[in-house]
Amino acid sequence: MSHSRTDNTPALPVNPRIAIVGTGAIGGYYGALLARAGCEVHFLLRSDYEAISKDGLRVHLHKTGETVHIHPALAARTPEEIGEVDLVLIALKTTANAHLPELIKPLVGKHTLVLSMQNGLGNIEALEAFLPREQLLGQLCFICVNRTAPGVIENFFPGYVAIGEPYSPPTPRLKQLAQLWERAGVKCLMSDSLGEALWRKLCWNVPFNGIAIAAGGITTDVILASEPLTRYARLLMEEIRAAASAVGYEIEPRFLEKQIEVTQPMGAYKPSSLIDYLEGRPVEIESIWGEPLRQGQAAGVSMPHLESLYLMLQHRVTSRG
Amino acid sequence: MSHSRTDNTPALPVNPRIAIVGTGAIGGYYGALLARAGCEVHFLLRSDYEAISKDGLRVHLHKTGETVHIHPALAARTPEEIGEVDLVLIALKTTANAHLPELIKPLVGKHTLVLSMQNGLGNIEALEAFLPREQLLGQLCFICVNRTAPGVIENFFPGYVAIGEPYSPPTPRLKQLAQLWERAGVKCLMSDSLGEALWRKLCWNVPFNGIAIAAGGITTDVILASEPLTRYARLLMEEIRAAASAVGYEIEPRFLEKQIEVTQPMGAYKPSSLIDYLEGRPVEIESIWGEPLRQGQAAGVSMPHLESLYLMLQHRVTSRG
Repeated sequence: MSHSRTDNTPALPVNPRIAIVGTGAIGGYYGALLARAGCEVHFLLRSDYEAISKDGLRVHLHKTGETVHIHPALAARTPEEIGEVDLVLIALKTTANAHLPELIKPLVGKHTLVLSMQNGLGNIEALEAFLPREQLLGQLCFICVNRTAPGVIENFFPGYVAIGEPYSPPTPRLKQLAQLWERAGVKCLMSDSLGEALWRKLCWNVPFNGIAIAAGGITTDVILASEPLTRYARLLMEEIRAAASAVGYEIEPRFLEKQIEVTQPMGAYKPSSLIDYLEGRPVEIESIWGEPLRQGQAAGVSMPHLESLYLMLQHRVTSRG
Repeated sequence: MSHSRTDNTPALPVNPRIAIVGTGAIGGYYGALLARAGCEVHFLLRSDYEAISKDGLRVHLHKTGETVHIHPALAARTPEEIGEVDLVLIALKTTANAHLPELIKPLVGKHTLVLSMQNGLGNIEALEAFLPREQLLGQLCFICVNRTAPGVIENFFPGYVAIGEPYSPPTPRLKQLAQLWERAGVKCLMSDSLGEALWRKLCWNVPFNGIAIAAGGITTDVILASEPLTRYARLLMEEIRAAASAVGYEIEPRFLEKQIEVTQPMGAYKPSSLIDYLEGRPVEIESIWGEPLRQGQAAGVSMPHLESLYLMLQHRVTSRG
């Protein structure tokens, strides 16, 4: 096992012992692929504990027709049962970020790497509050995956992940993580700037997830078929671009237009936040809309279109009952 | 009959011959009160022509328990049947403003006064396009009135009207109009500035009518019970205030807060545009939201919160089917 280091920051063993925190669709999917690749993967579970303890975890890969069946799966109800690991993958909904300290601390030792796979902004910052900065990594997941029953996950579009160091360009340990992903069958890009990647992803999530909910529960094709809503989407993207620029990330105008273009062939697509909204689950209001608004405003950028959307969404989500 | 003039502008006879264009709740209500006061009032009608020709027009005044029954009512299907009058009252929905020339021109001679009682901005301008400016007057109606059946109107809150000259302080003819309203039993204020009165009314209509629809069809109490929506309402009011200032009308900050205060005791109130929206009727998108946005922007004021709302409303109304 290689424990090569950059400075005194932790590195990653070849077959790390892993804990998945937040075993929904995303956590279950990536955890299952890592377990298949030979890692010891512990799943921290609540509602699906019984099902996964008994029958294991099934991931249906529709692109290849394979089913990955991890059985027995290492299911745990508390992080204390798992103890220290080499790598923590956080796939928790950001709406539960207040619970991060109690969930993560028991898993983390001096050499543990903690990878946030969560949506939007503010997640690395939430971890920084109780963990050393040099143990943190970030990841964006571009994927279409659903949990259809306890312990059952369907993957239609494998997509890719983009990983990054929060405070530096790629390091040797980031390359090790990329190799781990590739070995697990996950296409992986290394981002020169995690911050920039997160802001770029907001260029899609802010308008499409947001308008889909605010306009009463509509799919992306309805947004793009509406001239006023497409214009609204563009205005929101422009604000994200201006805020990203103010915090140091330059996004080219062409990138915004590309977000519209890639959405066209997606048809009647339900953005993930819309699914959460429609199914009565918490919506990640703060990490996708609130935090970008606050960071933009703190950098001196007025974001009134985003502010309008954020206020409407806050009402929508709280009035859902 | 007094035909006193200010310069060479038309004046108003004591018992003017009147045409009501747009005999919905507002037009029917004020027309009936003027007919009761002794004026010859012609109602231009479409859908309610049969009912009103046969049974006349009934206005139930709930505050006093009275019913004003105008029978026979002078019903017409075309403006040509009515011909020139002394005073035209326009209560047409602003969504039908493209029809103003064909509806109004046959009613107007050299001495005819034309009073727009329509909502929002751009209505006097629409009349200017085909009528002499010196024949135009404006009115704001603060009232709660509903048409409950063909030829039947219910009035719960008589309220008041505010009349004004579009291009000058009050004139003698405006005072005559005020006297006519008082004689008809309508409380009437004379506004020193019609433009300012219209912008002030937008401070209520823009946020409350707009948010009620954009948030999916909610009443004013729901808006005020929601911290984010109340904040959104205040942001919209601030933009209206800034735009009004840029076009020459100063609205004091206290006035904005008062709009919130007067709405508190209204309970589960449905703004008029929400009723239009819910009943599938045209919503006055352009005069209440589009035109203030364009006038503000033309005066150099950024109105992004209003723009967001306007875009959402455009989608809402067009997607209603």
